[in-house]
Amino acid sequence: MGENFKSKPLIDIPKGYRTYVANAGIKDKTLDLGVVVSDVTANAAAMFTSNKVKGNPVQVGIKHIKGGKVRAVVVNSKNSNVATGKVGYDDCVRVCKKAAHELNVPVTQIFPSSTGVIGRRLPADKIIDALDSLSAKLIDVDFAGFAEAIMTTDTFPKYASRKIGNATLVGVAKGSGMIEPNMATMLSYFFTDAEIPAASLKTILKRVVEPTYNSLSIDSDMSTSDTVMVMANGVQGKVPLAAFEKAFREIATELTRMLARDGEGATKLFTVTVKNAATERDAKAVGKSIINSPLVKTAIYKGDPNWGRIFMAVGKTPGVKVEPQKIKIRWGGKSYSNDELPALSEYLKANEELELEVSLGSGTKSWTVYGCDLTEAYVRINAYYTT
Amino acid sequence: MGENFKSKPLIDIPKGYRTYVANAGIKDKTLDLGVVVSDVTANAAAMFTSNKVKGNPVQVGIKHIKGGKVRAVVVNSKNSNVATGKVGYDDCVRVCKKAAHELNVPVTQIFPSSTGVIGRRLPADKIIDALDSLSAKLIDVDFAGFAEAIMTTDTFPKYASRKIGNATLVGVAKGSGMIEPNMATMLSYFFTDAEIPAASLKTILKRVVEPTYNSLSIDSDMSTSDTVMVMANGVQGKVPLAAFEKAFREIATELTRMLARDGEGATKLFTVTVKNAATERDAKAVGKSIINSPLVKTAIYKGDPNWGRIFMAVGKTPGVKVEPQKIKIRWGGKSYSNDELPALSEYLKANEELELEVSLGSGTKSWTVYGCDLTEAYVRINAYYTT
Repeated sequence: MGENFKSKPLIDIPKGYRTYVANAGIKDKTLDLGVVVSDVTANAAAMFTSNKVKGNPVQVGIKHIKGGKVRAVVVNSKNSNVATGKVGYDDCVRVCKKAAHELNVPVTQIFPSSTGVIGRRLPADKIIDALDSLSAKLIDVDFAGFAEAIMTTDTFPKYASRKIGNATLVGVAKGSGMIEPNMATMLSYFFTDAEIPAASLKTILKRVVEPTYNSLSIDSDMSTSDTVMVMANGVQGKVPLAAFEKAFREIATELTRMLARDGEGATKLFTVTVKNAATERDAKAVGKSIINSPLVKTAIYKGDPNWGRIFMAVGKTPGVKVEPQKIKIRWGGKSYSNDELPALSEYLKANEELELEVSLGSGTKSWTVYGCDLTEAYVRINAYYTT
Repeated sequence: MGENFKSKPLIDIPKGYRTYVANAGIKDKTLDLGVVVSDVTANAAAMFTSNKVKGNPVQVGIKHIKGGKVRAVVVNSKNSNVATGKVGYDDCVRVCKKAAHELNVPVTQIFPSSTGVIGRRLPADKIIDALDSLSAKLIDVDFAGFAEAIMTTDTFPKYASRKIGNATLVGVAKGSGMIEPNMATMLSYFFTDAEIPAASLKTILKRVVEPTYNSLSIDSDMSTSDTVMVMANGVQGKVPLAAFEKAFREIATELTRMLARDGEGATKLFTVTVKNAATERDAKAVGKSIINSPLVKTAIYKGDPNWGRIFMAVGKTPGVKVEPQKIKIRWGGKSYSNDELPALSEYLKANEELELEVSLGSGTKSWTVYGCDLTEAYVRINAYYTT
């Protein structure tokens, strides 16, 4: 993978956070537990998967985030604690209680996440043991280490940061990975030392998530555990909200691009911008239809300049009026005639990031979505595992 | 592929039809033209793709079928005549006019279809030449031959028939194939010698298509050329409509199962029945969500007993209320506990037809959908072609 798709070293780091990463022995000897603790109670907001089958940590997190105050995130990999029933819910609560006890904070200030196989009971006792004497084990904050601890088989850890005046915002994400067959759960956490009210965090988070994480699709499947969360501990004081939102969106876009490029089996980052649509909703729907089309995703994989598939994917978008004769397609800023298909094939083959622009000719709105190609490796990663 | 998935020899054949199959030289030396002509004008009805980018033959067919009278279907492969603009529309009309002239019937009684690559001009003159002296070239009807002539790279021709009293109904279909990268266009034609009014054909066709072709998904992509058409020439007189519809649905189900089993790169037929849903619409939507999930489709390919993916696919179905704790899953009529996953893996590996039953526990309605697994071969077929 090209180096410019990976995380750059973190220069700027928000103040007032500490870290604990460990192997709790959930499945093997690799890191499976990551904790970030704020020195003081932070304002917080979160958004979750809209899958109607929600993991237990998501259900607990929905409850805990209501107060808008978080002291620590506790994330485990190797087991998602999904479809494990009442006992699984209680397991998650027990883990939160242990962390709350160790940090001497209310249990609702512990924000839990789990990622991994579905339908197996979480070995909560192992996590609880690992959290013993948590306060004493916290080290100077290491967001890169935390990003690594929550990876499953992401091929690289994902993080990015921005300064906003004296304050700093850092974002961390994990995406598609397979240690056990799971479902490309997307987890992402943002930490800042700016002082921002929980209500503002919520509003900004919603606005940022829509054009970034919600515009990303690796394979059209939706995890039962997807979570995005932001903590603001206020240690560095207030910052202009507009500047904060700008930094937030930039980091989220960067992480979204990393998640797409590092999709299961992917060899290319595929961005699709739909322009001149009647509404943003239409533009996004058409973009998603293109980026989720298996025939488009296979065509770009090996450079088949088969633009008819783009037309097909535009036309099948539910609920969007399309006038086929007005559709215009550009790749990397250039349109290709039928006589230039070998050059288009060359463009598709030569680049690790493919930029498709589709103009619908029916309005003035546009939207960009992020995806990747579909390869034999995707099939292999997801087919050949047997319990 | 198991023999029981393929077409059985046609014993019963409707009277009053003749055939012409040929190589018109559209791309290479293989069959690329198939014509079925009724001796007398037949009542007819048709349904088409709901893709908003519609091929020129679909646009012409929509016009022609309005009269409810058809004398002949003219089908070419190797070029779909889609996204070719006004000149492509005129090309299609010229082909119809030639056939109409040769058969001495109104042009609206010619029903055209094309399947193949998108966006290249149809070599209409070659087809027109091949239609020269059509009446003289017609042979005794050969539906199996016609089914073969319209194949692209279907791995076997698809047909089935039923007697209804003295009359007979035969159905022919082509599905996913790749001679040139196209998009798994589904074409299907039914011919009967029963006497049935066009309005009844239309009603019955609509009712039959919903639980069969409209419940089929190879890869969630929707062709710009999908067409189902039925002709009834009346040569054998009237039959009870209920018996006719029953035969129609049986044949359509048989062909749908063949199309699914013969999906691009597929190794398994995958049927999903969703039971105990609040509405049929819900049951179908959940079934489609499962059958289109790449993670489910890869899991069944190599026998990963990863039932969490089924839960995920149920939960992500848009607009359907789901109570996770009520979901029950059965494979081949049996439920498997976490302790029995090796046996489930064995079931998935050993069978060429996989039957999944999902009970939602929220009502009394059910629906069955038809699909296949997702394999490296699907990626290969659709990725490695370059113009």
